[in-house]
Amino acid sequence: MAIVLGPNQYGKAENRLVTVTRDGAVHTIRDLTVSTSLRGDLTDTHLTGDNSKVLATDTQKNTVYAFAKQAPVGEIEDFALRLGRHFVSSQEAITGARVLVDEHAWERIEGDDHSFVRGSDEKRTTAVTVEGGRAWVVSGVRDVVVLKSTGSEFHGFPRDEYTTLKETHDRILATSVTARWRYQGEGIDWAESFTEIRRLLLATFAAKHSLSLQQTLYAMGEAVLRARPEVAEVRLSMPNKHHFAVDLSPFGLENDNEVFYAADRPYGLIEGSVLRDDAEDPGSAWHTLPAF
Amino acid sequence: MAIVLGPNQYGKAENRLVTVTRDGAVHTIRDLTVSTSLRGDLTDTHLTGDNSKVLATDTQKNTVYAFAKQAPVGEIEDFALRLGRHFVSSQEAITGARVLVDEHAWERIEGDDHSFVRGSDEKRTTAVTVEGGRAWVVSGVRDVVVLKSTGSEFHGFPRDEYTTLKETHDRILATSVTARWRYQGEGIDWAESFTEIRRLLLATFAAKHSLSLQQTLYAMGEAVLRARPEVAEVRLSMPNKHHFAVDLSPFGLENDNEVFYAADRPYGLIEGSVLRDDAEDPGSAWHTLPAF
Amino acid sequence: MAIVLGPNQYGKAENRLVTVTRDGAVHTIRDLTVSTSLRGDLTDTHLTGDNSKVLATDTQKNTVYAFAKQAPVGEIEDFALRLGRHFVSSQEAITGARVLVDEHAWERIEGDDHSFVRGSDEKRTTAVTVEGGRAWVVSGVRDVVVLKSTGSEFHGFPRDEYTTLKETHDRILATSVTARWRYQGEGIDWAESFTEIRRLLLATFAAKHSLSLQQTLYAMGEAVLRARPEVAEVRLSMPNKHHFAVDLSPFGLENDNEVFYAADRPYGLIEGSVLRDDAEDPGSAWHTLPAF
Amino acid sequence: MAIVLGPNQYGKAENRLVTVTRDGAVHTIRDLTVSTSLRGDLTDTHLTGDNSKVLATDTQKNTVYAFAKQAPVGEIEDFALRLGRHFVSSQEAITGARVLVDEHAWERIEGDDHSFVRGSDEKRTTAVTVEGGRAWVVSGVRDVVVLKSTGSEFHGFPRDEYTTLKETHDRILATSVTARWRYQGEGIDWAESFTEIRRLLLATFAAKHSLSLQQTLYAMGEAVLRARPEVAEVRLSMPNKHHFAVDLSPFGLENDNEVFYAADRPYGLIEGSVLRDDAEDPGSAWHTLPAF
Repeated sequence: MAIVLGPNQYGKAENRLVTVTRDGAVHTIRDLTVSTSLRGDLTDTHLTGDNSKVLATDTQKNTVYAFAKQAPVGEIEDFALRLGRHFVSSQEAITGARVLVDEHAWERIEGDDHSFVRGSDEKRTTAVTVEGGRAWVVSGVRDVVVLKSTGSEFHGFPRDEYTTLKETHDRILATSVTARWRYQGEGIDWAESFTEIRRLLLATFAAKHSLSLQQTLYAMGEAVLRARPEVAEVRLSMPNKHHFAVDLSPFGLENDNEVFYAADRPYGLIEGSVLRDDAEDPGSAWHTLPAF
Repeated sequence: MAIVLGPNQYGKAENRLVTVTRDGAVHTIRDLTVSTSLRGDLTDTHLTGDNSKVLATDTQKNTVYAFAKQAPVGEIEDFALRLGRHFVSSQEAITGARVLVDEHAWERIEGDDHSFVRGSDEKRTTAVTVEGGRAWVVSGVRDVVVLKSTGSEFHGFPRDEYTTLKETHDRILATSVTARWRYQGEGIDWAESFTEIRRLLLATFAAKHSLSLQQTLYAMGEAVLRARPEVAEVRLSMPNKHHFAVDLSPFGLENDNEVFYAADRPYGLIEGSVLRDDAEDPGSAWHTLPAF
Repeated sequence: MAIVLGPNQYGKAENRLVTVTRDGAVHTIRDLTVSTSLRGDLTDTHLTGDNSKVLATDTQKNTVYAFAKQAPVGEIEDFALRLGRHFVSSQEAITGARVLVDEHAWERIEGDDHSFVRGSDEKRTTAVTVEGGRAWVVSGVRDVVVLKSTGSEFHGFPRDEYTTLKETHDRILATSVTARWRYQGEGIDWAESFTEIRRLLLATFAAKHSLSLQQTLYAMGEAVLRARPEVAEVRLSMPNKHHFAVDLSPFGLENDNEVFYAADRPYGLIEGSVLRDDAEDPGSAWHTLPAF
Repeated sequence: MAIVLGPNQYGKAENRLVTVTRDGAVHTIRDLTVSTSLRGDLTDTHLTGDNSKVLATDTQKNTVYAFAKQAPVGEIEDFALRLGRHFVSSQEAITGARVLVDEHAWERIEGDDHSFVRGSDEKRTTAVTVEGGRAWVVSGVRDVVVLKSTGSEFHGFPRDEYTTLKETHDRILATSVTARWRYQGEGIDWAESFTEIRRLLLATFAAKHSLSLQQTLYAMGEAVLRARPEVAEVRLSMPNKHHFAVDLSPFGLENDNEVFYAADRPYGLIEGSVLRDDAEDPGSAWHTLPAF
């Protein structure tokens, strides 16, 4: 028996990058959180502390900021690809790179050229992996909190000795969507694809009459795959943010799904993936990403 | 020397209330966090545990939910006033009540009658105090994150032995505005007043050329007072969310205020109040509210 | 009517300071979060952006770090007093300074001279105000989470139309104590006083049979005042962290206060102060501190 | 091409469970956060909303609380195994269950039988998977924040055009350890194993002279595997919580590694695994767990 090093990676996490570009008096800002991780032959630093193959995480950070100046950031997928490709070509020992980018939304303050107000807490995300001469792009959204005030039921579930839940034919359905979709193919218009996928996710959440949050999740993934050939697979994590109708009968009041208590914990957690049966092999696309 | 009870209050904090109202197929939701505190002759419970004058915090919670059913919630100021007036009239020992309400923003998902997506993390707030036959209303906003990419300078400050900061004639100015304004007078249109004050705060942040964050803060308060006679006083707390231009010279690059590092801590913290010199006495309006 | 500047202050918040001192091979670390605020004649910067009286918040930060080197940090009260006195003497326009220090706990890793593991999330705090040739010291603790599994009752409260809570003669009582106490007099041994006050707060929480959380709060403050003549006043904020006995009867099980659901929100919030009736006037001691 | 359902699971997350047991007047409390997920043939609920195979997450929650009453909770691994085995045997369609438990630490308040104070924020964790007639146990710790004030160097790393970092032969090394270890074999004494593994992780962090955080990570994993035959594999995620020596030279002061600024973001992030080369196949042990 020997003890050996298994999978590993290292990098600089949560580099906060804000850029300003100017078109005359009109400014545009971008607000990104960038995390980089490198993989490769890292046995020496783990076993002996020999760092001759370790591109310092401080250097990775500098690279992020320098790259933001050397060329326009562009779509987050392109920026992550540029960084990832640079890292794997920069040192022989580095055989893989993963770059995560979250983009934070800002809106222009009405009537002003260079002033902005932070939008929703929702983030556009990408996770790019560069390895062995190719690249995988998994983009997504996080913290998209949605709610429908009707059009959701939950019944027909089995009842065992620990079941007390009543069946319901009308409830609030609320969740905070984390979605990641894996791209395949070439020449993708990242911005157009993102905008349309996000729209499809929301529209399907809204329009689909729901008999379970699982059904809604699947419908959302399916809608993306039907409409967007560039997507091979969608993974979704959707907490069931419970809104309980408050029992007002002790006060002589009837609560016809009008007054709710929004609970924090515990919460249901529905996680799943929807994919094409002929999708390309995912390769390293999902390696070390959160499971759903 | 004797040991005595000083100021005190008790209540139920952070009741999460969501309501749904229906106009045919079109639903409207409201999402509030409500905290109540009662004041009065509470010596007995503190000294002997006699609770005969203590309106249980559980009862306060029930009251919040029941009131949301008994009449439309309406503007948060009106809802808080209804609750506060009820509490002081409910028990002889209760001589004062303070009700805090935060309202969370949702937007309609396009094209749907009953589906919504959470908006920005910004909250509309109110803090209502009912005491001695009258009421004070202090409304506000929280977590309004704003940024201007130019139009901000900082120079002319004294230099002592610990000063290293360079003067700047162009910097990013970013902050997360917490504002509270105290109303005076009667017959205020809460919704219209809120909308207009928020607009004035943002427009002034945007338009005012800034030589210090203090100057911006004062201008924002002043703009509200000039335009809104129903406001007696504005208190603002504005962290200076530093965006540091990254030094790219080691990489042979010039950074002409294009690439910034957005820092977390430490941060500047600018707090101040702007008021009419003939404003009504604030009475209990600010008692136990955060200082700025 | 004129619009005027009201109370205001500015400073650098949350300077994260860690120091290492060495006694041969044995190291000692200190981990502090320091926030400074200055007050004074700040009309110019607010009205015109003239910063000639503004000690830059960056300078305040530098001062914190430089002072940590120029002399041993010592007790947080002494460090805050040194900083506050320096600031008010550094610029004529600065007439007041407030320094907040939180100290984070670390424990030595057993058997090692220079390795440490973070202790509980509890913080020792101080809020020092220097103004008009004198100083006030308000010290405290935050995030001291305590629980007693019996010895707590709650009954005898009034029942109105919104009351559904059952009386209880045995419940879990849990809270997260924030306490601040105002010192008076000279020559106080800050370390000994802190240690003993913290011990008294915990011992009283534990020993006092509780008929209401208010009674427990008062007893805790009273115990401090009885034993510590250097304390003029104690202010406490104690959320009632509800632990609800789970109803297991649907499963044919009796729950004799054995199995609880620890709820997040809403929570009771009990706030109060206990003081000597002949205490010195608090002056500016509490100005702009959170109300409880 | 068809669109199909991929891997999925559903459950109730973050059930907050506190139990009290009594040995005469002496009480013991346990404070757990329990999350359950079920896997199996869930095509129907995803495609048609037929819930006849869905054990409601509410039922899962009830089961957690009922089980805490039906038998002593015991070690978290045993509790998770009981729950997991119950779930897979409760419904034919459920073929797999994963149960996560975090245990929160409390200490007794000195001299009292039934009063407690919350300890450090560190959690003992387990992730148990039951599937196909067998079970995997992956236990761990989270949020173990450690720091060594010397005995850490970082040099010998490659310098490219984006490298500015200076080499150092003495720095603070600080991290927040998340470790998970996979057990193999039978008859493990969970409590003794946990205590000893935690001790080994801390002792190795302290004793190992560090040339890189990777070297420290590997040494920690190796120490566990050398001493504990019941462990097949250790996975570690260790952020490099940077402590930067403050440049005090502008103030005429030398900073001999005495005064540090503790930074929040960005941070280094070192992730890796250490394993026996003859370890049992992990099967489903790590499925859907965070990657490191």
